[in-house]
Amino acid sequence: MSREKAQYRQIADQLKELIRSGKLAPNAKMPSVRALAQEHKVSVMTSLQALRSLEQEQWIEARPKSGFYVRSYKSLHASNPKPFETTSLDEQTELHLSVLGTPCRIRLDLANGETALYPVKKLGILMRQLIYKDPTLLGNHIRGTGYPPLKQQIVRRAFDYGCELDQREIIITNGCIESLTLALRAVTEPGDSVVVESPTYFVILQMLQNLGLVAVEVDCTELGLDLVALEQILVNQKIAALITISNSNNPSGTTPSNEHKSTLISIAERYDTIIIEDDIYGDTHFASTRPKPLRALSKNVILCSSFSKILAPGIRVGWIAGGVWTSKIASLKYSSTMATAVYPQAAIAEFLRTGGYDVHLRKLRKTLQYQIRKMREAIIQYFPENTYVSDPVGGYVLWVRLPSGCINTRELFELSRKEGIGIAPGHLFASDNRYENCFRLNAGFGWDKEVEKAIYFLSRAIISNPVHSL
Amino acid sequence: MSREKAQYRQIADQLKELIRSGKLAPNAKMPSVRALAQEHKVSVMTSLQALRSLEQEQWIEARPKSGFYVRSYKSLHASNPKPFETTSLDEQTELHLSVLGTPCRIRLDLANGETALYPVKKLGILMRQLIYKDPTLLGNHIRGTGYPPLKQQIVRRAFDYGCELDQREIIITNGCIESLTLALRAVTEPGDSVVVESPTYFVILQMLQNLGLVAVEVDCTELGLDLVALEQILVNQKIAALITISNSNNPSGTTPSNEHKSTLISIAERYDTIIIEDDIYGDTHFASTRPKPLRALSKNVILCSSFSKILAPGIRVGWIAGGVWTSKIASLKYSSTMATAVYPQAAIAEFLRTGGYDVHLRKLRKTLQYQIRKMREAIIQYFPENTYVSDPVGGYVLWVRLPSGCINTRELFELSRKEGIGIAPGHLFASDNRYENCFRLNAGFGWDKEVEKAIYFLSRAIISNPVHSL
Repeated sequence: MSREKAQYRQIADQLKELIRSGKLAPNAKMPSVRALAQEHKVSVMTSLQALRSLEQEQWIEARPKSGFYVRSYKSLHASNPKPFETTSLDEQTELHLSVLGTPCRIRLDLANGETALYPVKKLGILMRQLIYKDPTLLGNHIRGTGYPPLKQQIVRRAFDYGCELDQREIIITNGCIESLTLALRAVTEPGDSVVVESPTYFVILQMLQNLGLVAVEVDCTELGLDLVALEQILVNQKIAALITISNSNNPSGTTPSNEHKSTLISIAERYDTIIIEDDIYGDTHFASTRPKPLRALSKNVILCSSFSKILAPGIRVGWIAGGVWTSKIASLKYSSTMATAVYPQAAIAEFLRTGGYDVHLRKLRKTLQYQIRKMREAIIQYFPENTYVSDPVGGYVLWVRLPSGCINTRELFELSRKEGIGIAPGHLFASDNRYENCFRLNAGFGWDKEVEKAIYFLSRAIISNPVHSL
Repeated sequence: MSREKAQYRQIADQLKELIRSGKLAPNAKMPSVRALAQEHKVSVMTSLQALRSLEQEQWIEARPKSGFYVRSYKSLHASNPKPFETTSLDEQTELHLSVLGTPCRIRLDLANGETALYPVKKLGILMRQLIYKDPTLLGNHIRGTGYPPLKQQIVRRAFDYGCELDQREIIITNGCIESLTLALRAVTEPGDSVVVESPTYFVILQMLQNLGLVAVEVDCTELGLDLVALEQILVNQKIAALITISNSNNPSGTTPSNEHKSTLISIAERYDTIIIEDDIYGDTHFASTRPKPLRALSKNVILCSSFSKILAPGIRVGWIAGGVWTSKIASLKYSSTMATAVYPQAAIAEFLRTGGYDVHLRKLRKTLQYQIRKMREAIIQYFPENTYVSDPVGGYVLWVRLPSGCINTRELFELSRKEGIGIAPGHLFASDNRYENCFRLNAGFGWDKEVEKAIYFLSRAIISNPVHSL
């Protein structure tokens, strides 16, 4: 550090102390540049630099033709800086965030990959280039249901895997959660019952509760939703809608056959239950052919999806194909979040149009397939006999069910958290305790010695903590 | 154009025609590079270029070790390309979009400025730089209520104008509409009644309807909400919440005094009515002092705002200070749109932190003040005597009330639209026809000969189309 720099920093620190202590109160005039220079025996340039640095850090402000004054905010708060605390939340949100929001070294708790898995820099550059070329992408007030070139790409891609959509029914959203919320609001009234898969993605349970809807949980096995159980329920009570994660289900990993999908659709149609399909993992298939969304088999299905599992978990761009409910959904979207930002839509549309999406997706699918396979093999190798582990044909996650007599996964969660290992314990995935012998693992964060050690740690924690059932 | 380029384009066009006509059906194998070269008597390079150009435009696809094949989508759709049609919407949304979504030359119908008014390129560059430096901004899965440095800047700025917020109560949203929706969902149940200003920002009316809430309209004059009328209503019926655009009201232009604001708060508190404040225009004040939000006067007010009126209408980042309702709001946000994208939040936080926001805001405020003044003067000059025009101390819009015997503003809207001039007719701003003699004008799109001519056109349309009241 040069001598001048050391000098002005020292002066700045002394001044901050005076403000912190209240000796220089809010709105007090600061000593002049000249006075400071004389007092500290430094050049005018150095004392000016000290004041400028305080101004930049927003301790003081320059007032025209008058000099520098103490700003009110810093002087009050800087002495007792509050930590960045999260909001205190309701019980259910608190549960999710405390379980899944906890920073941990090994992120086996999520359902996505590490940043390196995604074309993030390319998308950032595209976004900036597009805004630069056409500032109205950011500057214009937005109305309408989405950026037409993106809708066009969505329709084109869907057509390639046998799903005929119409551009006019596509509404771009702030992610798949918004798509599901809009679909639910469009086809239900508060008080209605909605069938969800069991186990189900936990945010869906919270969404239903917050919309005043009643969740009816139906078992989801390797084959898909238990259709016999479903029909028994539909015979006996009015179910307004059914939410299903149709391919590479989160958490069960299930991808039902086309026959199963067709039967599900005909049952739902028979009882006037509207299917809301979440196909967010559809593109992550490991086999060469993409599994069909339910929507490919029936126009009566509302199809929801997003780009966050393929392009970038933080991009927050989803979509919905609303079919005959499009008008209602568009009205709900307009009056609840107005519209989705155009600049990320433009970047995604360009990435799709130029083929970057497909190139990236091929690589992503291979990576996920490898990581899922390795993690699954390790579980089979290390975990107790009779442990069930799902065998998904796509997606990021594995669903594990421990044999009887094993540790409660709430406890396993606590034990592994102490080691910096995150898992998603089973009780998140249902409204009751039926999955306390299950947990979900994320294979998206690579396969290396660290992850293998984490799987090994989990197996030791399970084996060394048996529970004797009565 | 070089000879080679002309040749390959010609070949490509012929091939497209074969696909369009169905002579080359979906999944048909394309002629080989060599065959094409022989047929057209061109080099292999030229025929390859023709095929590559079709591939890039997604007419055909390359299959490994096999050659090029016709893709299914284009062949079906390219011959009858559907125009980009907007979704067919419900009546109320249709009304808004048909009135305000219509492209017109002179955008006096909106409530924001032209793109050139906003630091759009700077924000785009910041966004890209930040993503490049920290790819997790785009790549990481998002949880939580917002980007802490942005919350910090929001709290700091609010403190500067006398409003003490806590970082823990700030939730970042996808714009002010989402803030208002979350606030309403947090403090009301379907069936509840909510007081809105009359005239009011039209999206609020649609929002209430879509949430199953009943709008109770109370007059809003130059002084603010009619407090006598308000209290009469509160005495007689339970009102769960009251929504007010607290400063530089849209559309009325009103900025109530601090006394009026205090009285409003005490009335609402007396009847347990929760105030939801939309302060989106607060920063656009023309005078040297920023008007206070209601929240500065009472902790019981839920404060909603956004950056779209200052930084970029298309950025879609808003916020809410939830006070004691923070937990509920956070849960609703989490389960309805999960979280707001971090990369625009990071760009805004950086723009605020480095002082760019304040520099830009000073310029914006001067520009708006000038444009509002010029438009107002022109209205006073050209319009019939006894025309009322609001005199706002901030914001983008003027509210005009025509004297009796003048044209219905639904008709004025139709007449001006034919001239490429957009206005926002009065009937949008209430649930009934009480404002058919009013309309809103936007001064955000500059003041020049074109805009002056538009104001002059409106005045002629009004004067030459008198309506004789019975």
